[in-house]
Amino acid sequence: MNIREIAERLGRRFKGEDDQEVSSVGGLREARSGEISFLSNRKYASLVKDSAASVIIVPEDWEGTSKASLIYSPNPDADFAQVAQWFAPEPWIQEQGIHSSATVAGDVKLGDGCSIGPNVVIEAGAVIGDHATIMAGVYIGAGVEIGANAYIHANATIREYTRIGNNFILHSGSVIASDGFGYAVDDQGVRTKIPQIGIVVIGDDVEIGACVAVDRARFGQTRIGDGAKIDNLVQIAHNVVIGEHAVIVSQVGISGSSMIGSRAILAGKVGVAGHLRIGDGAIIGGKAGVTKDVPDGQYMYGYPAIPFKDASRQRVMISRLPQLKARVDELEQRLQQLEKNDD
Amino acid sequence: MNIREIAERLGRRFKGEDDQEVSSVGGLREARSGEISFLSNRKYASLVKDSAASVIIVPEDWEGTSKASLIYSPNPDADFAQVAQWFAPEPWIQEQGIHSSATVAGDVKLGDGCSIGPNVVIEAGAVIGDHATIMAGVYIGAGVEIGANAYIHANATIREYTRIGNNFILHSGSVIASDGFGYAVDDQGVRTKIPQIGIVVIGDDVEIGACVAVDRARFGQTRIGDGAKIDNLVQIAHNVVIGEHAVIVSQVGISGSSMIGSRAILAGKVGVAGHLRIGDGAIIGGKAGVTKDVPDGQYMYGYPAIPFKDASRQRVMISRLPQLKARVDELEQRLQQLEKNDD
Amino acid sequence: MNIREIAERLGRRFKGEDDQEVSSVGGLREARSGEISFLSNRKYASLVKDSAASVIIVPEDWEGTSKASLIYSPNPDADFAQVAQWFAPEPWIQEQGIHSSATVAGDVKLGDGCSIGPNVVIEAGAVIGDHATIMAGVYIGAGVEIGANAYIHANATIREYTRIGNNFILHSGSVIASDGFGYAVDDQGVRTKIPQIGIVVIGDDVEIGACVAVDRARFGQTRIGDGAKIDNLVQIAHNVVIGEHAVIVSQVGISGSSMIGSRAILAGKVGVAGHLRIGDGAIIGGKAGVTKDVPDGQYMYGYPAIPFKDASRQRVMISRLPQLKARVDELEQRLQQLEKNDD
Repeated sequence: MNIREIAERLGRRFKGEDDQEVSSVGGLREARSGEISFLSNRKYASLVKDSAASVIIVPEDWEGTSKASLIYSPNPDADFAQVAQWFAPEPWIQEQGIHSSATVAGDVKLGDGCSIGPNVVIEAGAVIGDHATIMAGVYIGAGVEIGANAYIHANATIREYTRIGNNFILHSGSVIASDGFGYAVDDQGVRTKIPQIGIVVIGDDVEIGACVAVDRARFGQTRIGDGAKIDNLVQIAHNVVIGEHAVIVSQVGISGSSMIGSRAILAGKVGVAGHLRIGDGAIIGGKAGVTKDVPDGQYMYGYPAIPFKDASRQRVMISRLPQLKARVDELEQRLQQLEKNDD
Repeated sequence: MNIREIAERLGRRFKGEDDQEVSSVGGLREARSGEISFLSNRKYASLVKDSAASVIIVPEDWEGTSKASLIYSPNPDADFAQVAQWFAPEPWIQEQGIHSSATVAGDVKLGDGCSIGPNVVIEAGAVIGDHATIMAGVYIGAGVEIGANAYIHANATIREYTRIGNNFILHSGSVIASDGFGYAVDDQGVRTKIPQIGIVVIGDDVEIGACVAVDRARFGQTRIGDGAKIDNLVQIAHNVVIGEHAVIVSQVGISGSSMIGSRAILAGKVGVAGHLRIGDGAIIGGKAGVTKDVPDGQYMYGYPAIPFKDASRQRVMISRLPQLKARVDELEQRLQQLEKNDD
Repeated sequence: MNIREIAERLGRRFKGEDDQEVSSVGGLREARSGEISFLSNRKYASLVKDSAASVIIVPEDWEGTSKASLIYSPNPDADFAQVAQWFAPEPWIQEQGIHSSATVAGDVKLGDGCSIGPNVVIEAGAVIGDHATIMAGVYIGAGVEIGANAYIHANATIREYTRIGNNFILHSGSVIASDGFGYAVDDQGVRTKIPQIGIVVIGDDVEIGACVAVDRARFGQTRIGDGAKIDNLVQIAHNVVIGEHAVIVSQVGISGSSMIGSRAILAGKVGVAGHLRIGDGAIIGGKAGVTKDVPDGQYMYGYPAIPFKDASRQRVMISRLPQLKARVDELEQRLQQLEKNDD
């Protein structure tokens, strides 16, 4: 598709070579020749001039120049989203029915319109809702219950007795209901496994990324609330409770029995110690280490985590330590002079 | 089961509505209506009053009040563990024998009473001890030796020539004996793979969590000692040696050729640089970054890690920097005044 | 093999018991009786004396003593590498051909000399180059293109439309082209999934470790450049671009749309915030948290990351805070004395 065809299809005016071919899309920074990009957030305006993109969709009143051809739009974001669709590959959809290589126990209840891929294993007593897509190599343990519209990606594992709501998405390599990390320790430091006899209960509209581990409860339930979104490589220990619509970004680790408030946001690589409560709507900055309860709505940062404002102040104080030291050096010299005079 | 039945079965007295139905268990903080909880550690006594649990098992001499019904016990911990068993689902056990969809090489030696699940692959020359349970989708490479009573969860991977002792537990998604991260680098910064020709050797009574990566040695052995317990999402690089009964908590990363002492404890998200020795019985606090050898028994904290006491002192010093600055401000003013007087 | 046989085969002189049997290799620190080790880097010279190894290959001019027998070599590193080969197990090679339990769509194009293991699934339209080894349980999605000589280890997952160059190595448990973590959020904090319609494009000579997650682009491409090496348990978010020959060590996390320069090195556990550019040849120290663009060649450290020199200075300043405080204490006393005198 060339730039003229794109501009016409969007109903926008453009400036530049009208036969420039475009075959893909990309952000301003990483786009290359043959790609179309867009400027939505003015924060990135300085990238327009030298972007390697062949075409950039800019706001209608944009007056800057660029090496790229420009398409002028009242809504670059929406127009770009539309163009991105044109260049995206067709979404791939697994065939309905049960693949001949799947192993599904006789008493499993499958809803209407399900698609069960190659080598899937579903153990006895499981109940899967309508329109589920279970991809190749997925393991679903005994007695697992999953609501409607589930999408379980290849090579994920859901162990026995897990209960999951509607519209669940689970990405590849993830493990739901592995044993919690619990041992009795004797006076020689030798550890004996404490049976982890609880389960995992997941609400509606939850998405869990790739290579995530969610441990089953020591007893009772590890719980993930409705609408919670969990990124890749996250650790959720036994008996953790995650509130509704909470956001858990990649590589976060939450220790045993901690509770994350509803709509709380834990940024990437945050660690939360055990038996804590993180308040509703709290925000924990990237890489912070939480060692105490966090009140509702609080924004925390640092290792160990403290309120963000305090952390910022501390950082400034630390960066100015050389000046503070210089002032103390000077004070000592001046004081010494005064003391001499005083003799 | 209602509270009266529970109290009777435990042989304990109770206070509250005797027909309150209980169907599950939970911690004081996260328990909900219809659940039974317990107070063992007095640290959490303040949670009893407002817990949403329907029933709480408390110490015999407990005098506090609660919205919940109370069961009085000389040992709430043990009584609760018993109740938790009553409400737990039956442990699920995979059938003995080799599933028809498994691919087991002709010369594999399987012990008595083994259970080999669907789609399991066991390559040539492997030896598996008695009473092993190998779940669906597990891959066991050529020449792997595993002792008695192994429990390998679904979709785990154990690569060629790994040697493992008795009573091994491996959770789903984990990978044993992946290649170490080793390259020769030329003067252009281009890297060429160094063959990783060593193996992984694991002792008796080891448990390894979900989504863990243990790399095979560059040469010789990566070793995990008897009784070591490893949590989820841990990275163990090539030629690492983990001592007996060491505890490695979730998301820890140990770089190449480092040795972890016996009974050492590495808390969550700890990072250990390469070629270090962490002493026997050392404790590394959560999220610490270890960059130097750690003596036996030392408790370390921080990034980079220093002895815990020093880290605590530093943290206090940092939090008091505003006061220190204020004192320097005041000193300067007073000194200026004196200098004026001195003129 | 005994030490005399090893020395003869290497053509080197030795000192010690000539019938000492050696059956394995190991580093100086972790080697045990019956193992052969080596001293290459003089930094580790102090370990020779008490190493538990039975034999150590030392530099020809080595004059130190050891409990071990010694083999003298002009190049201990190279000699040891050779010995390590003798003791390594035969590299295991999967048979050529397509295993009967594999599910390969009818229109898949397989190159010459490929080996497709048990339970492998390759969906419609995929193209796999010559001499590929695809191990058991691997899932390769629709339309995936992979160049020559690929080695995909057991239970890895490559989702639809991914494009990969020659000589690709992917370790077990890893997931390529999982959905990016992207949601539209309403004023109630409820999130709706933004379709992730882009793909992942990987260059030539790339190796990716175990349990790694690489997300597909929100639109356009997540890109990994030629020669990049990625360790275990790494998170690469949507629309990230990784430069040629970059090195990404274990447990690093790179947030959405960030670009990593060519030949940059990110040490273990580094976190990179979103929409940043890390310059060519930059080095980010272990566990650092990068929150701003990093210039080419810069060495960064700390949380948040600052230039390494500044971080080192800050650390020294912090460790000397007790002295600074003591000096302020003393200044106050001396000043008070002067003020008294001044009255």
